[in-house]
Formats: sequence, C-alpha cells, structure tokens
Amino acid sequence: MRPINPALAATFAPPVMEARRWLQGVSFPPERPLINVSQAAPVDPPPEGLRRAIADAALNRPDAHLYGPVLGNMDLREAVAAEFSSAYRGQVQPAQVAITQGCNQAFCAAIETLAGAGDQVILPTPWYFNHKMWLDMQGIGTVPLACGEDMLPDPDRARSLIGPRTRAIVLVTPNNPSGAEYPAELVGRFFDLAQEAGIALILDETYRDFDSRSGPPHDLLTRPDWDQTLIQLYSFSKAYRLTGHRVGAILASVARMEEVEKFLDTVAISTSQLGQIGALWGMQNLRQWLAGERDEILSRKQATIAAFAGLPGWRMKSAGAYFTWIEHPFDLPSNDLARLMVGQAGVLALPGTMFTPAGDPMGAKHMRIAFANVDLPGIAQLAERLANFQP
Amino acid sequence: MRPINPALAATFAPPVMEARRWLQGVSFPPERPLINVSQAAPVDPPPEGLRRAIADAALNRPDAHLYGPVLGNMDLREAVAAEFSSAYRGQVQPAQVAITQGCNQAFCAAIETLAGAGDQVILPTPWYFNHKMWLDMQGIGTVPLACGEDMLPDPDRARSLIGPRTRAIVLVTPNNPSGAEYPAELVGRFFDLAQEAGIALILDETYRDFDSRSGPPHDLLTRPDWDQTLIQLYSFSKAYRLTGHRVGAILASVARMEEVEKFLDTVAISTSQLGQIGALWGMQNLRQWLAGERDEILSRKQATIAAFAGLPGWRMKSAGAYFTWIEHPFDLPSNDLARLMVGQAGVLALPGTMFTPAGDPMGAKHMRIAFANVDLPGIAQLAERLANFQP
Repeated sequence: MRPINPALAATFAPPVMEARRWLQGVSFPPERPLINVSQAAPVDPPPEGLRRAIADAALNRPDAHLYGPVLGNMDLREAVAAEFSSAYRGQVQPAQVAITQGCNQAFCAAIETLAGAGDQVILPTPWYFNHKMWLDMQGIGTVPLACGEDMLPDPDRARSLIGPRTRAIVLVTPNNPSGAEYPAELVGRFFDLAQEAGIALILDETYRDFDSRSGPPHDLLTRPDWDQTLIQLYSFSKAYRLTGHRVGAILASVARMEEVEKFLDTVAISTSQLGQIGALWGMQNLRQWLAGERDEILSRKQATIAAFAGLPGWRMKSAGAYFTWIEHPFDLPSNDLARLMVGQAGVLALPGTMFTPAGDPMGAKHMRIAFANVDLPGIAQLAERLANFQP
Repeated sequence: MRPINPALAATFAPPVMEARRWLQGVSFPPERPLINVSQAAPVDPPPEGLRRAIADAALNRPDAHLYGPVLGNMDLREAVAAEFSSAYRGQVQPAQVAITQGCNQAFCAAIETLAGAGDQVILPTPWYFNHKMWLDMQGIGTVPLACGEDMLPDPDRARSLIGPRTRAIVLVTPNNPSGAEYPAELVGRFFDLAQEAGIALILDETYRDFDSRSGPPHDLLTRPDWDQTLIQLYSFSKAYRLTGHRVGAILASVARMEEVEKFLDTVAISTSQLGQIGALWGMQNLRQWLAGERDEILSRKQATIAAFAGLPGWRMKSAGAYFTWIEHPFDLPSNDLARLMVGQAGVLALPGTMFTPAGDPMGAKHMRIAFANVDLPGIAQLAERLANFQP
C-alpha cells in the first residue's frame, strides 16, 4: 500500500482487538464459559437514573444535539474543578480543565502540546499500550523506564534518562497494567524531578476512583504553580460506566489550554454532549453509588490476592484498581501462553508482552489479569482453572 | 510555557472560537438581532423521531453505554457501504468503511495513514482551516493550490506541484468555504493524476447531502481499485443535525483500515454509541425528510444569489451547500472588515483570511457567508444591512 506513513506502519496493532481475534473459532461449553479478564472496562450499563438523565436530555434539550465549546461544557469543567480541588485539597480553576473524547484523547492532546517528531518521552514499563502507540505514530521516541520488582518507577533512574530532547515523564496511577498505587511521596519526587528538569509530568489517573487509599493520593495540586509542570488526566468511563460515550478530562495551565484547544478543535471539535451531560449527572448524583462500586472492586481485589496466593508457581507483583500483574510459572513467553489459555483454560487475559518493549523478559514472564469485571465466584473459578492449567 | 511542541505553537488558533470572541461586549438591540452567518452547522435539533430513537437506546440498550468496535458498529458500516454503493453506483464493502468521531477526525485519520513530519500535502485554497491546522501541527508541509476565479482547482497546476515528498491531494466538494460543487469530470482528472503519481486523493464530502445536482457527483467509486487511490470522507452531522454527537465516516481500502484502526484506537477507542445509533436511524428513516432539508437549503442558496446580485460592489464567486464565497467592495482586508461588520451591521461572517495562507490577497478580498442557517426573510435582511454598510 502506498503512500503510507512509516511511523504509523511501524506502530503495533491495537492489542485489545488482537486479543479478541484469539476468541474466533473457539467455542466455550455452557457449563464452562469464557472467563474474560482481558478488558479494563465495565461490562454493565450505568444506573437507571443516569440512563434516564441522558434519555431526557436527548428528548428535551435541543443543545444536547449541537456543537458545544471545544474545551467542553462550562458546567462540567466547573464540576471537575470543584471535585479535584476538594479531593486533592488543592486549587483547580475551571479554566484549567478541558473535556476530551475519552482519556486516551486527553493523553494525545497532552503529548501534542509537548512534543513533536524527534522528541522523547519517558514511559515506565510495563506501559499502557495506547500511550506507546501514540508516541510511535507521532515519531516521538519512547525512553522506557523499567519498574522494579515492586512495580514502582525510580525517580533517580528516571533522572539519568533525561536528555536534551526529553519533554515529559508519564505516570499512570493506579497503574495500568500493574494495578500499583504509587505512593504520594514517590509522585512528589517525580514532580520535583520534572520541575527541576523543565519538563512536564503527565499523571494519568483513569482509575483514581478505585484507589484503595483514603484521602488525596498525592499533594501535587496543592503546590503553587502545579500547572507549570503537571498535566493530570481523568476518565469518566470507569466510574460512571460511560465507556460508550467517550468522556475524559485534562487538567493543565490556562496557557497550555490554548494549545489543547487547537488540537481538540481539529481532532474532535467538541465532546459528545450526551456524554458530558451524563458525566455531570454522575458527578452530581452517583457519589454514594460510586463508593459502593469501589468497595465491590476492592473486595474483588482481596479475593484475587487470596485466590492467587494458593496458586503454585504464580507470583503476584502488584494489584489495584482493575488489575493485577502476575508472574506465571511456565517456560513459555506470555503471548504464547495467553493464546493457549483461551483454548485450554477458557481464560482470556492479556500477556505482559503487550505492555513492554519487544524482547523485554519482564513482558514474557508476566500477565495482566483484569479482575474487576469478575465476581467472587468467578474469581475462585479463575484460580481453579489456572491451578489445573498445564500448557 | 515550556516544554512546548513548536509545530503546535505555530498552528493558528481555532477560527470559529476567535470569531465568537468578536461578539463579546457587543450588544444587539432586539429589533435588530445579530445575523450569524459564521457557522457551518445546523442550529436546530434533529427531528423528534431521531431524538426518541436515541433516548430509547439510552434507556433500554445496555450496549449503547459500552465500548464498541474501534472501526465502528458493523450495522452502521453496512448501511454506509450500501448507501454509497447505491448513490455512487459503485462498489463499497462494509470492511472499506470506518466510523469516526466526526469528519474532522476522519481527515486526521486519513492524513495520519499517509504522511508524517516533513512530508507534503496539496491543499486547494481557500482551504478548510481545520485541514490546514492538522497538517501544521503534524509538521506536514502544506502546498497551496490556488483556485481560479471559478473557485475550481486546476489538475495541471496540481501536477506541477507534486514533488518527492507529496503524499496526497485534498479536495472538498461541495466546497467549504466556497460552496463550489466540483464537476465530476474535474474530480475524475484529480483521481487520474493522483493514481499516476502514486499519491492519495482525499475527497471530503461533508456537504454531499446538499449538493444541488442529481445523480452521483463523481464516478470514482465505480472505478476498479478506487480504494488504492481514493480516501473519501463523510459527516452525519449536517444531514441529520448530529453535530453534538460527533459521527463521521471514512472510506478506504481494507489494508488502509488496519492503519486507521491504530489511529482511532489511540485517539478515540470508539465512536459514541448513541451517535452511531442516531446516525443509523437517520439513514434508515429520514431519507424523505433530508430531501426536504436539501430543498430548503437550495432555496436559500437561490435567495442568497438573488439578494447579493443587487448589492453594489459585492461579487459572488461561488455558492453551494451551506456557503457562498464573495468578494467585498472595500479597501480593507476581510479580517478587519469582519470585525467592523459585527458592530456596524450586526452581521457575523468569517473573513477569507481564515481560509488562505498569510498575506494571500484572495483571502483579504473575500468573505465566507454561511447562508444555510438563515431563513428567506433573514437573507433579505442580511442583504439590506450589507447594502447600507459603509466601514
């Protein structure tokens, strides 16, 4: 095919779509259905009140069908600013908030403001694959920063990787794929490092609503001039089960928002009005419901930890939010293993190779298990199937 | 601010947002309200049946709230393939269709598959500003191809502009900003040129539903191997008044769709489900209604042509779809004129300078008037105000 952008051609294909293809032609008997721990997404629709709010808007609010402001509806920006100011005990103004078509797009926008082809971005490994894909297709170099056995990135190691073309460090906490919750002190050290080096710290908090800790997970938003260094990202998809509506947010300086606006105007024009209306309704009405959701996911995490503790040879490295990152006991790379697991164990999980540079032994040795969508009996069954699995 | 991507910093700000700022602090008396001919978008919501279909899905279809396939819902892809096969008397397979978060994003995806920083794309002038913005922020060089007095681009002139880094020619028909409907034979010659040169022809048909001609506007989709050269773009926003839902489409080869999928997975993950459901319902149920919409817009076009014919000094170059491109009689650049028109004539229109390279005299001499959203009495009033306007 020609012409072709070589940077895009060299970018790997969407891993989630690839994993879905592994299911083709495999049948699962009714008494032993597929256990799908590949997805990092709710499988149920939002509560009825939210669905009704969206339906009402579709019927009765003419502006719900028309373009909105490029940076998002002001009521939602205000709600996000108030929520983040309160939850982080910091200062976030509505003008420091933009709404995006999902959190992936928030990341793309953030990077677009920072770096172009030939620049570099530091990405801890294992990484979130869509982050790597965006950097690749933009011709931006990825500098991998390998996490330790505790699945935490080391700021001193990061410091040694900063060069003249480095534009940002990206942290995801709670982490995808590892589930690790980064300590506030660690996040603070990365902020200090970025500030000193004159680069940006991008903090992707897609899973913040399922953090097991109480209180602010970091103090960055209390710092003066936080917005000169920090770009914080958020997703409404997980908390309010709005994955099909594509609503995310980006927190950054007002000056940077002018650049974000150029990108969003060109790629999106504006975010779905019904999605924004749903997200706002969720923030205003689902606080208690969300607390219950969090409790349920935390109990699933505990059940997963307990179930895997009894699995001979499997070694859990970290767990949190929707995920656990786990070392498998087999003499096979995880990508081969993941395919065999589909047919032999009736389990779909993503191999570590999808989250690491090609040839990285860490990727070959690990799997990501998204336990959040499996109920407690399902988690027990998952562990049983893996205990009996011998590729 | 640092760090900053210099390519994005050098990209101009969204013109529509800039024009909106001109309204700040200006008051319009009730007996003489603002006539807004700046927007290229419906101002009313979709018909009640479509609103009800979206509301029903929000309430009753769980999958309307969950991620869909990256390339779009198969039912909508099938409907687009069938509609385009029929309307263009050609062959379009569902696998050659992808759904995007609006047609701007379809353009971004198309370019991303074709070109990277340092490559070049030929863009007829006046251009659609978001096209130029995307090329600028991606570091792709824009080669302007000035339209003639008939507002048509010349393929022979285009041929002389093709160099070793040229990856595509972009045509918009019916055109934004000029309204010109490109003759089928002209579009065919551009296809031949692109095919010979081994580059892509991107055809943006956002306004195809308001083309004044009957029958297929070109024969490209009847040609064997059309998808080796052509990338065709479409928007559901204008036809079904779905601007607030962000739904567009891209037609290309199956091989190119694998590249499109990488981009969309990273920037969008998937398009709003409710938007896709609304678009499909519109295609299935609003054909006759859309024909009436087209008739109304064509009558507004005729009224605009008639009204401007009587305006001393104003010279209409072209008209079609939502727009007319018109030369003004004043010794002022159009961007200064547009601001004066807000306060003195109560008219907001976009200056030609927003659609042309900096310093291009064509931009300074022309305005884009989006007549489609003004009813017949409003068009008469617009002409009257301009007749009395003396900056």
